[in-house]
Amino acid sequence: MDRSVPVDTVDIRTYFDENRKRVDGLLDQYLPSEDTEPKTLHAAMRYSVMAGGKRLRPILTLATYEYCGGSYADDDKIGKVMAALEMVHTYSLIHDDLPCMDDDDLRRGIPTCHKEFGEAVAVLAGDALHDIAFGLIAETGRAEVVTELALAIGTQGMLGGQMADIEAEGHEISRAEIVNIHRRKTAALLRCSVRVGAILAGAKETTLEDLTDYGEKIGLAFQIIDDVLDIEGDQKLLGKKVGADSKRLKATYPAVVGIEQARSDAAELIEQAVAVVDNDTGSMLKEIALFIGRRDN
Amino acid sequence: MDRSVPVDTVDIRTYFDENRKRVDGLLDQYLPSEDTEPKTLHAAMRYSVMAGGKRLRPILTLATYEYCGGSYADDDKIGKVMAALEMVHTYSLIHDDLPCMDDDDLRRGIPTCHKEFGEAVAVLAGDALHDIAFGLIAETGRAEVVTELALAIGTQGMLGGQMADIEAEGHEISRAEIVNIHRRKTAALLRCSVRVGAILAGAKETTLEDLTDYGEKIGLAFQIIDDVLDIEGDQKLLGKKVGADSKRLKATYPAVVGIEQARSDAAELIEQAVAVVDNDTGSMLKEIALFIGRRDN
Repeated sequence: MDRSVPVDTVDIRTYFDENRKRVDGLLDQYLPSEDTEPKTLHAAMRYSVMAGGKRLRPILTLATYEYCGGSYADDDKIGKVMAALEMVHTYSLIHDDLPCMDDDDLRRGIPTCHKEFGEAVAVLAGDALHDIAFGLIAETGRAEVVTELALAIGTQGMLGGQMADIEAEGHEISRAEIVNIHRRKTAALLRCSVRVGAILAGAKETTLEDLTDYGEKIGLAFQIIDDVLDIEGDQKLLGKKVGADSKRLKATYPAVVGIEQARSDAAELIEQAVAVVDNDTGSMLKEIALFIGRRDN
Repeated sequence: MDRSVPVDTVDIRTYFDENRKRVDGLLDQYLPSEDTEPKTLHAAMRYSVMAGGKRLRPILTLATYEYCGGSYADDDKIGKVMAALEMVHTYSLIHDDLPCMDDDDLRRGIPTCHKEFGEAVAVLAGDALHDIAFGLIAETGRAEVVTELALAIGTQGMLGGQMADIEAEGHEISRAEIVNIHRRKTAALLRCSVRVGAILAGAKETTLEDLTDYGEKIGLAFQIIDDVLDIEGDQKLLGKKVGADSKRLKATYPAVVGIEQARSDAAELIEQAVAVVDNDTGSMLKEIALFIGRRDN
């Protein structure tokens, strides 16, 4: 049989396509309608959330849930948590894009939230997504999942990474320092997405530890590749401006170690992540890691 | 016995003084140290939270908890929720004060967070307080309290009120519309503070309904009086600039109904709130309502 694309690649593409649609459906279901007051705020939230994106965080949660024996059809808890993770991710992008932060005009191929709705609405839309995400997770009745999220995106996680990222602008930093920024800014939420999938499926402690390691590794690789794509990526594919990092004198991984070393470090992290889940049940988590390794957007 | 101050007034003052200190201690306990990275972010969070304020929301929670038979010494759940409510309140103030929002320079008698730390840090400090508050509540293991908070401060509550407040600037609005803004912008979190105190104490449904009504009434009265104080208050006592509302063409209650009617409506709301709790066990909730009615800061 003549197939130009390897079977594995087809599988992961189908998996992503199907679950992106599923995530879009969940987001549409759990976001307030634009016809409900406050209409402008709801419109801004929907504008940014429904602009697309890879939906990597909720898909990671689902894939981990399935890896640990759960099934999407089990109950609606997993769907609520999936929607919440994408909302949290979008909240962080909206605030990160603000003029006082990264001052970005383009995101997911369209004007950023503050360019479209103004800064005040963008601040509130981010706040509202942050809030609704916690509300959705609380609806599952699992307070420990709320705790997981709060820790992942707080000052020891995502927000701490964003702060360190701002403070590092224009400074020379070491490899250890940039890894420490990436670990919090990006890896913390990806690792959390993996962990909550495992926790909801009732994974045992050793599995949870292994998967935490997997989440950390793909999270770091993801951000290194993000930095590389900002240098040599295709703006059309990325849906955001390239070259923004160097323009802002951002601390990036390639700036610290060089672009070739960055690529090879990312590949090594992917290899280590694959090793954690390379078994009979691990196929999708393995494929997601490989997908992150070769992503171009 | 010659006392220039009525006994009730002394009692509520002592109650407020003692519990303000208690709340300050809780906040100090649960806020990350300035010596912990990210230091600037933690410093900004502490700067705004520890700047003082009435601590009305956590004190309301505790007074309601006690009204429903709870005692502060019972366990540490109540303290975590009290700290969380004050952090959420401060997060809303920090974002509300931003240049793209109300653009205020002074808050609680000191420069606003963005004047002291810059806008980027202020956005992140607000986000971090929002986050840590949910984390603290989740630590109590009571997911339904997380839900209460998320609903109170989301687009159907506080954030919706802030959005409507911005949209109403420069427009003539009706009494019903300004009440609808106040109900969400201010009353929702005060009502939530009362409700979570009752829920944590295991109050029965009818009591919870009565107290929700009480919280709503004092919340509306609080914001009407806030609007009145912005016209004729003392800047030194208030710790923020007076006249800011009319300068920004804000929709305010006195602007809609006149200052005399505003005062009388606030008094009526306080009277109705007092009626709900005017019984043997209600003394502190009654005194808090009366305190709100006569507040000058």
